Amino acid sequence: MSSKENAADQSAAGPGSPSPKAPERAHPVTLREVAEAAGVSTATVSLVVNKKKDARIAEETRQRVKDAIRALGYRPNAMAKTLVSGTSKFIGLVADGVATTPFAGQIIHGAQDEAWKHGYALLIANTEGNSELERDAISMMLEYKVRGILYSTWFHRQTDVPAPLREADFVLVNCFSSEQGARAVVPDEVQGGRSATEILLAHGHRRIAFINATIPAPAKDGRLQGYRKALENAGIPFDPDLVMEAYPDQEGGYLATAGLLKRGASAVYCYNDRMAMGLYDGLREQGLSIPDDMAVVGFDNQEVIAAHLRPPLSTVALPHYELGAAGVRMLLGIDAAAEGPARIHCPPVERASVQVRAHA
Amino acid sequence: MSSKENAADQSAAGPGSPSPKAPERAHPVTLREVAEAAGVSTATVSLVVNKKKDARIAEETRQRVKDAIRALGYRPNAMAKTLVSGTSKFIGLVADGVATTPFAGQIIHGAQDEAWKHGYALLIANTEGNSELERDAISMMLEYKVRGILYSTWFHRQTDVPAPLREADFVLVNCFSSEQGARAVVPDEVQGGRSATEILLAHGHRRIAFINATIPAPAKDGRLQGYRKALENAGIPFDPDLVMEAYPDQEGGYLATAGLLKRGASAVYCYNDRMAMGLYDGLREQGLSIPDDMAVVGFDNQEVIAAHLRPPLSTVALPHYELGAAGVRMLLGIDAAAEGPARIHCPPVERASVQVRAHA
Repeated sequence: MSSKENAADQSAAGPGSPSPKAPERAHPVTLREVAEAAGVSTATVSLVVNKKKDARIAEETRQRVKDAIRALGYRPNAMAKTLVSGTSKFIGLVADGVATTPFAGQIIHGAQDEAWKHGYALLIANTEGNSELERDAISMMLEYKVRGILYSTWFHRQTDVPAPLREADFVLVNCFSSEQGARAVVPDEVQGGRSATEILLAHGHRRIAFINATIPAPAKDGRLQGYRKALENAGIPFDPDLVMEAYPDQEGGYLATAGLLKRGASAVYCYNDRMAMGLYDGLREQGLSIPDDMAVVGFDNQEVIAAHLRPPLSTVALPHYELGAAGVRMLLGIDAAAEGPARIHCPPVERASVQVRAHA
Repeated sequence: MSSKENAADQSAAGPGSPSPKAPERAHPVTLREVAEAAGVSTATVSLVVNKKKDARIAEETRQRVKDAIRALGYRPNAMAKTLVSGTSKFIGLVADGVATTPFAGQIIHGAQDEAWKHGYALLIANTEGNSELERDAISMMLEYKVRGILYSTWFHRQTDVPAPLREADFVLVNCFSSEQGARAVVPDEVQGGRSATEILLAHGHRRIAFINATIPAPAKDGRLQGYRKALENAGIPFDPDLVMEAYPDQEGGYLATAGLLKRGASAVYCYNDRMAMGLYDGLREQGLSIPDDMAVVGFDNQEVIAAHLRPPLSTVALPHYELGAAGVRMLLGIDAAAEGPARIHCPPVERASVQVRAHA
């Protein structure tokens, strides 16, 4: 999926509910406070902070200043402009899966495009889920007095807000917290699941299986809810026997083949594209053809896979680009925060794995 | 492939050849030079640069300063520490495919790990190949007085050095230039092609086809050269009839099936994993099994594909993590620059698409 397609996809940034209060933010510790605590002048603190080794300061005084800095949690200010304005023209982006998943790249792309539009540069830190790296990354961003921080996860999940994040304005991207006032943007899983099922309904399928993930996640609950809604809207009673579970990768999809074939469905909606890719292999081994014997829809529109399976896979795109862009808009106050996370539309993408056929 | 596996893979940073001279770098234009050119005091220039709107400066003077800034190419300095030291604790990374390929993520990961090790933060800009974005990104980095810039491309290629890049120390990552003294780190395509072929040779194959890419690239030449070297080392005469060409994606690999089967090879080495994925589909349609009827090796060790094909694909990993890390080391002068680009080892990864079999 090109970024242009993604960019064209307008966000549905939640209902017009009243904005909750911004999270409480402690006032930053000043140089003066450090000086007062240490019983020295601000000039002395400045010399210690800037590591002027040749400045004539008694070692005992230097140590007292350092103790005060540590006790108060003072952060030295890295930038000239920052000394005047209090914030820089940086927005920080903490991401946990830049290297190991293809999803973080689109979040970066969307956040950067939107940040640049408003005169901000993006300072990106990749943590690969390492909490020590994460703490260091947030500290570094705070020292550079970023305008705010986007905290993003590569899969949609609930998260704890890391303590140092509270020292800045922040927005959670592709994750959310139960914490009061923590602003967040997430994909609209329910709408996505509904759209995936509707692709199959529109092509005449009535007996549609859903292979959900075994792993608990907001996507698991939301996509099932969307599947049920779509069936309900079409007047088709929900049959729990048509909902299976598998590990959400190629191996999981492959191993689900036999169970799926027992259920007499004409179509299947898979939790993600990787699962659909494995199911393709399983169906082929049984001599079955897609879409004639089984229509298949995935989820994610995963780069490198979805468009390149044989036949190409119908799916629903995860709006990573738009999540990054919407996160920046919310951080800068351009988009109002919704009550609860803002939910971003997941656009359906139709390909040849589903075809027009007679009603069953 | 986990980053740990990648990190463990030591770089072969080229032979111990003498270091070429660092590229010539123009001395940065100073505030004083701007003042002299405009015939005003440095204080006046500073007021104009810092956009003090309420400073009492005649519009004509302000304009003269702006003209001098433009004419001399003066870049205002963004950071307090920078005003003293001349460089910041930032390393810039310009990347052209963060959003659209899974490869850039590992370059970012490797560069960031190495930069942090030496006390530098990474300032990343994603350009998606847009030259205007690229120019803006480099300008922004220069204004922040980065220690240097890594200029990276998502596929290995020759590149022109963008003019503003010459204002900083820079290293080309996954690309190279014919320009004298332009330091670069690239994957060792020849060794990679040799390793891919050697996997098949080690399992007793003698008649090994190579499906190369249709698109001219250093990878195309290097991987073919490696294939020929491996055959030569094994005492097998090169047969040009065994070298085919296809578009380097799934569709290309699929369409190459018939041509491959005509050649009577027992094994095939594909230019990349995507091509191998398409070839899997083609071979299956012919009722052939992998590896019994045809052993297959790819290249890239592409996340989401290689380990998850059925059977899992033997391949050679592109060392993106190590390219990023080696780029930082070269930028900081920790690794000496080689004569020509430093070549990073591409480690072979064996999986079930190749098996022990009787000699043909």
